[in-house]
Amino acid sequence: MKTVGIVVEYNPLHNGHTYHFTEAKRQTASDAVVAVMSGHFLQRGEPAIVNKWARAKMALHMGVDLVLEIPFIYATQNAEQFAFGSIATLHATGIVDEVCFGSESGDIAWIEKLAAILAEEPLAFQETLLKGLAQGRSYPAAYGEAIQALLPSLATDTLQGHVTEPNNILGLNYCLALHRLQSPMRPATIKRQKAGYHQETVTDQSIASATALRKLILEHANNGIHAIRPYVPQSTFEILQAEEAAGRFPLTWERFYPYLQHQLLTRWPEELATIHEMNEGIEHRILQALPRSTSFYHLMETVKTKRYTWARLQRLFLYSMLNLTRSKIAVINAKQGPAYIRVLGFNRTGKRLLKRMKETSTLPVITRVAKDKHPMLTLDVQAGALYALGLPESLRQKEMQREYWQTPLHFDHI
Amino acid sequence: MKTVGIVVEYNPLHNGHTYHFTEAKRQTASDAVVAVMSGHFLQRGEPAIVNKWARAKMALHMGVDLVLEIPFIYATQNAEQFAFGSIATLHATGIVDEVCFGSESGDIAWIEKLAAILAEEPLAFQETLLKGLAQGRSYPAAYGEAIQALLPSLATDTLQGHVTEPNNILGLNYCLALHRLQSPMRPATIKRQKAGYHQETVTDQSIASATALRKLILEHANNGIHAIRPYVPQSTFEILQAEEAAGRFPLTWERFYPYLQHQLLTRWPEELATIHEMNEGIEHRILQALPRSTSFYHLMETVKTKRYTWARLQRLFLYSMLNLTRSKIAVINAKQGPAYIRVLGFNRTGKRLLKRMKETSTLPVITRVAKDKHPMLTLDVQAGALYALGLPESLRQKEMQREYWQTPLHFDHI
Repeated sequence: MKTVGIVVEYNPLHNGHTYHFTEAKRQTASDAVVAVMSGHFLQRGEPAIVNKWARAKMALHMGVDLVLEIPFIYATQNAEQFAFGSIATLHATGIVDEVCFGSESGDIAWIEKLAAILAEEPLAFQETLLKGLAQGRSYPAAYGEAIQALLPSLATDTLQGHVTEPNNILGLNYCLALHRLQSPMRPATIKRQKAGYHQETVTDQSIASATALRKLILEHANNGIHAIRPYVPQSTFEILQAEEAAGRFPLTWERFYPYLQHQLLTRWPEELATIHEMNEGIEHRILQALPRSTSFYHLMETVKTKRYTWARLQRLFLYSMLNLTRSKIAVINAKQGPAYIRVLGFNRTGKRLLKRMKETSTLPVITRVAKDKHPMLTLDVQAGALYALGLPESLRQKEMQREYWQTPLHFDHI
Repeated sequence: MKTVGIVVEYNPLHNGHTYHFTEAKRQTASDAVVAVMSGHFLQRGEPAIVNKWARAKMALHMGVDLVLEIPFIYATQNAEQFAFGSIATLHATGIVDEVCFGSESGDIAWIEKLAAILAEEPLAFQETLLKGLAQGRSYPAAYGEAIQALLPSLATDTLQGHVTEPNNILGLNYCLALHRLQSPMRPATIKRQKAGYHQETVTDQSIASATALRKLILEHANNGIHAIRPYVPQSTFEILQAEEAAGRFPLTWERFYPYLQHQLLTRWPEELATIHEMNEGIEHRILQALPRSTSFYHLMETVKTKRYTWARLQRLFLYSMLNLTRSKIAVINAKQGPAYIRVLGFNRTGKRLLKRMKETSTLPVITRVAKDKHPMLTLDVQAGALYALGLPESLRQKEMQREYWQTPLHFDHI
């Protein structure tokens, strides 16, 4: 059974994802699709607009056969760590033949070529990158410049202006991870249709970016999901409707602002400085802005700089809320790769894949959180508790425990 | 100008307090009264039902001439630390002649005698106390037993059953602090009338304990303050009414439960174990109870033991919310006594007292929080921010900054 792996967030799952899913399966001529998906919190450091179980359900309805969770420690990091954790999870299953990702370029040849060169981590590249960062460039900008400086020969039409596109960078990092893992999985890419990753407006009859959809949802207070109806599969629509009725949707950073205020306002600067990625005295800038910031958005607008981008700050605040210190990062030891494979959902084909994984997986496969936990898994459970605290009070207790009682979704029973 | 000092919480100020205030002034034949008062959080580890500014105002209306704040680090500790910080603050003013406290016994002679003996910290006493604690006794119970074992000769009718009364123990600790500080201030006591400290029901026409009043307030949802009208001065009543109208009253622990959940659920047991007074593995008991506890009250009921009394647990949870670790405690160095005297309010007489204090005070007198802060004061400011987070969302920002903009209340202008 030929199997393709995809890396997803589905926040929420929309028609563009369906296109990617269908094309990934068709172009790689695969029989099965395994998706590794972020949990409750996402790569840009924000809470998912709906919980991971609902999003896994959307994936199963679309036809994904097996949904695995990217551990929090990878899911909420920069592109490099995110890609490494995701690809390492797919790699560890031992059942995935190809990895297929969307990209702005759609050109796997140059992405692979670039990855092969960068895998050597040439000194000149590192230096240009660090120099760019020191000059106050954002990471993506400095990264793109460093690549272009290093490889003028690659600066073809395909590359020009493309290397800093978020999905190209992600794709590059997927390929780098494959190199690093010496993985037999082959990369493939599909050119993204129409909607740019961050595009905030809807410009097509049926395709819109997840960013645009979240904006639509939040702008249409009581009619949010109806506004996105043309852009999402019917199943997604119905799942969101049910989650909304249950009070679990939509969730945004604002719900967590009181917790963030508490966390930051009751700490000494020296304590904040121990948080992962809290560098260069940014804690002072944050503490100064905090008492005058009436909302999370307001705080972000006040603190952000060219250097401290929106995503970077959101991740920093997320780490703060979980008190993810540098010493905890050392204990979790994510550099060695994931410590487990956590299953969120499967269909009948997925069940067969799971059976095969019993032979092939190089990591323990977790279907239920046990008491004896790895610190990496502890963090996932804590993230689950935190996410629950963003819900209305009456739901918190139950959702808080969901990490323990929720078994993987079986498509036949949902 | 003969001045008497009193140690108070006024949560809220009621007729029993007026009696104590009047008698303290009369029996010591004083011209002025200085009160040292807890801030937003109290000795039993709970948020005050109304903020410290409103309570200072109540005190001024009753006739207190100068209201000083007990730093958080003393105000929320066990009886010994609470007494030490309070008495040391009064002592440091250099203007207080007598200290007058309420007690169940009303007998200053035996309290002083006991204090004189205990000041030597006799080994036998310490041993009996520790043995009692090791056997699972609560601190007050073990303390009382240790005293009775040590001093059978003192076990007169006055003492019997009295030594474990909370105000007697406090009084004893006030006298111990006077010894420790070699203070020239003289102790005096007034027998408490009618309502026991913890008494929860109202048994008199006009006197009820603060505990009973808080219960009345919270039980009569929309009519809370009217229910307590017979038991408080008219000024207290009006201040509470205004605070209620402003949305700042009543505040209880339940308002802070989400923050506590967040704080505890996202921490590793090893992190919790670094919190001040988090001993003997109680963190595991707390973490186990937490996901199943639907309210703060529920959590307390589940976790509390004979040894971990209600007050001790509340303090522990308060320390947790402020991440008050053992190493911070070491930096704050409360054993050396307060680092400053903070003024909450005064009348014309109080203003004269403050003028005199410029000559006599052994500590800096703070009327406004400056940027260059002592870690002990930082903690007060953080406690202020935390208290503000318990308020309705629309008030939080302003109240959070109040630590900075609020100058001491002048009775002529309130």
